[in-house]
Amino acid sequence: MSEPKKLILNLFEMNCVGHITHGLWRLPGNHRREYTDIDYWTTLARLAEKGGFDAIFIADVLGAYDVYQGSPAPALREGLQIPNNDPMLVVPAMAAVTEHVGFGITFSTSYEPPFAFARRMSTLDHLTKGRVGWNVVTSYLPNAARNFGLDAEIPKSVRYEIADEFLEVVYKLWEGSWEDDAVLADPTGAGGAGVYTDPAKVHPIDHVGTHFKVAGPHLSEPSLQRTPVLYLATASKDGIERAGRHAEVVFTGGGALGPTAEATRAVAVDAGRDASDVRFVVQAGVITAPTEEEVAAKLALYRSFASEQGKLIHRSIPIDAFEHPRSRTVGEALEAEGKSGDPAAASLPLGLTVGELIDAVDEAWGGRFFVAGTPENVADEIERWLDDEGVDGINLRQYHSFDTLTDFVDLVVPELRRRGRLRDAYRDGETLRERVTSGGARLPESHPAASYRR
Amino acid sequence: MSEPKKLILNLFEMNCVGHITHGLWRLPGNHRREYTDIDYWTTLARLAEKGGFDAIFIADVLGAYDVYQGSPAPALREGLQIPNNDPMLVVPAMAAVTEHVGFGITFSTSYEPPFAFARRMSTLDHLTKGRVGWNVVTSYLPNAARNFGLDAEIPKSVRYEIADEFLEVVYKLWEGSWEDDAVLADPTGAGGAGVYTDPAKVHPIDHVGTHFKVAGPHLSEPSLQRTPVLYLATASKDGIERAGRHAEVVFTGGGALGPTAEATRAVAVDAGRDASDVRFVVQAGVITAPTEEEVAAKLALYRSFASEQGKLIHRSIPIDAFEHPRSRTVGEALEAEGKSGDPAAASLPLGLTVGELIDAVDEAWGGRFFVAGTPENVADEIERWLDDEGVDGINLRQYHSFDTLTDFVDLVVPELRRRGRLRDAYRDGETLRERVTSGGARLPESHPAASYRR
Repeated sequence: MSEPKKLILNLFEMNCVGHITHGLWRLPGNHRREYTDIDYWTTLARLAEKGGFDAIFIADVLGAYDVYQGSPAPALREGLQIPNNDPMLVVPAMAAVTEHVGFGITFSTSYEPPFAFARRMSTLDHLTKGRVGWNVVTSYLPNAARNFGLDAEIPKSVRYEIADEFLEVVYKLWEGSWEDDAVLADPTGAGGAGVYTDPAKVHPIDHVGTHFKVAGPHLSEPSLQRTPVLYLATASKDGIERAGRHAEVVFTGGGALGPTAEATRAVAVDAGRDASDVRFVVQAGVITAPTEEEVAAKLALYRSFASEQGKLIHRSIPIDAFEHPRSRTVGEALEAEGKSGDPAAASLPLGLTVGELIDAVDEAWGGRFFVAGTPENVADEIERWLDDEGVDGINLRQYHSFDTLTDFVDLVVPELRRRGRLRDAYRDGETLRERVTSGGARLPESHPAASYRR
Repeated sequence: MSEPKKLILNLFEMNCVGHITHGLWRLPGNHRREYTDIDYWTTLARLAEKGGFDAIFIADVLGAYDVYQGSPAPALREGLQIPNNDPMLVVPAMAAVTEHVGFGITFSTSYEPPFAFARRMSTLDHLTKGRVGWNVVTSYLPNAARNFGLDAEIPKSVRYEIADEFLEVVYKLWEGSWEDDAVLADPTGAGGAGVYTDPAKVHPIDHVGTHFKVAGPHLSEPSLQRTPVLYLATASKDGIERAGRHAEVVFTGGGALGPTAEATRAVAVDAGRDASDVRFVVQAGVITAPTEEEVAAKLALYRSFASEQGKLIHRSIPIDAFEHPRSRTVGEALEAEGKSGDPAAASLPLGLTVGELIDAVDEAWGGRFFVAGTPENVADEIERWLDDEGVDGINLRQYHSFDTLTDFVDLVVPELRRRGRLRDAYRDGETLRERVTSGGARLPESHPAASYRR
């Protein structure tokens, strides 16, 4: 009998007070208000490492949510992803107090120059000894575009085109600019003058494309992983295309994984990769306690702090949903507000009633990858996700920081280990890529980035 | 009798193997080759804090030095500022293991968007509890321009124009976007719904200028200092103009401080600031040991590892100086190499001989702010810099990491304290600005950034 499939275990985070469980920063004892404090992050990282987490996966946005009610005011009131701080800068602090846990960092390809980003990620890969991943996103908030010199959001197709070229540039810098043996660090070479780097093994990239022009060479010497572990989210057809070609780990929301995974793996295989080179991690909610009664009490307490409005703000719903009768359709509500042509309306389910929209929109409290139960119930459900839903791992949503994490570490982790679903310990010196893929520290030869190697 | 002037004490660093004492990475026991390791930085920060340093001042470049011999090869061989890593990302690691020492971070206004930078610095000011400063630079390497989409360096006048607007944008974000009492973090306000931020107190900046267009609001809530302590380097007339208006600390090279300081303070006063609002920190070299004999031995050892060529690479000297007779003038050498029209030749002293150029170009081993001596000699000299040269502080150059620092901490710091030239201890909770200026945690009202406050 083959070994049971093991879980990739990530903690889902964001450098802000209100990430994804809207309203819950108000829970007594919740430390989320301390997100500006370095101790919040070092405590979190130590806990995650204690529990054997693979990585802390840090989301990000570059603007305020201002579609709902046509203003950032609701998001500000709720502390919903604003204020927020930079996701990358908490990583070195966490790395300084840990040895194993990895870090998935969200960075958008739409607004900042690839050359500076490539050096930042190389720096982090050095400082963490190969523990970083990059969540490649293209940003979706109209306000973000306006913060970076544009009048409106870049159309999705152009964002994706920019993303493709951005990836090409950073692959060239990470994989193609410095050969493995470029750095000699030889204090007595060249007749005593010393040679730090052999210049013959460092190459400019001379990239000239549609959106970027970058000479190089890369400024950083090669780090353990060179290219960080590549996370991509899929949703649209274009997203699946890109994920199939580039992603090592695909991160998805709450829907059924089957069709997305199948489509993504088909793209991967077409591109010459192995179907198993792409892993699927879903955002998941786990509320647990030793007994059913305690679980019910905890769930009730948490839910009592949930913000109904938060989910509408977060989903950029252009209608003021609570102002309409629940039986009205979304299409009628849009018309009543004179917003049928609003760009934010394009992705709305027009036939649903407003009541259904309000009830359906939030996955924090239900859906396919949510479980509230005893550690045994939770482990059963996670095993089902692994075996029946095609899931390779989870990004654990936090309801309460740090209780969600400590509950999982103290109660669920031992149960998953008993069942052989989670490795028993970290391996010393292992990079994040070695831990979450079947390959080595570097991308496999079949990955498109490898084509830029010399 | 008034108290003697106290020294602002910074450690000069860069995230690379070879910063400014060229060739000395080869010194036995020098830890510079470990710059990619997080432990290098945490060790360094702890030592600096043990010695009561005000800040670790981290230089940066965004390209390779490739003027000397028309190629990056000499810089690569020497490990001269390439490879290098990002300066900002080592700060959170150092902050995680210290409580007091500050961090001066070099960042160029020429190539990256102000909106993202503003959030990064706010994030650092939060994580460090007000311990960060920004060394405002415009970059000078032609290769840097080519790494960011340009064909050649932006002309200095345009770089300065961009810098002025960049400062305006980040001032608006840091000082004008969030009012002091915007964040309520009130879990029960608004009839139980809770209010994190009062939206009426958060403002877009709606900046529309020549080089930047930024909507805002700033994403980060106010940090202790809001605007980081502002360091600027002066050299040219334009540099003095800008430093006089914006700088809280001016960082200069090796020349006489008098005329520069006078000119900068005159600009400051014209701009409505106080002459004492601008402090002057010089790059300084200190080699010390308990006895004269040990000092001489250490100096001789260090010098024996110095690279003659390094200084020519670093200064972007376009002539291959060692290939010419020492008696030839620089002008003649340029002509012999057919480089009289080379842009890099513009700032060269054409009448000097090549021999004089080679001997004069390096300040690491001499010049106005260099001393090799016993702790008493060093303290005497530093007192002279403070009292007679108009200096307010030093950026201590490292010859050997960590010996330069530990020598200074163990031998010179106690002597300076005995003489009342260095404060005896840090004050708990003090921001970097409170420590190095006479004001509070925030910029004074007379500073141009204050005009964007509400």
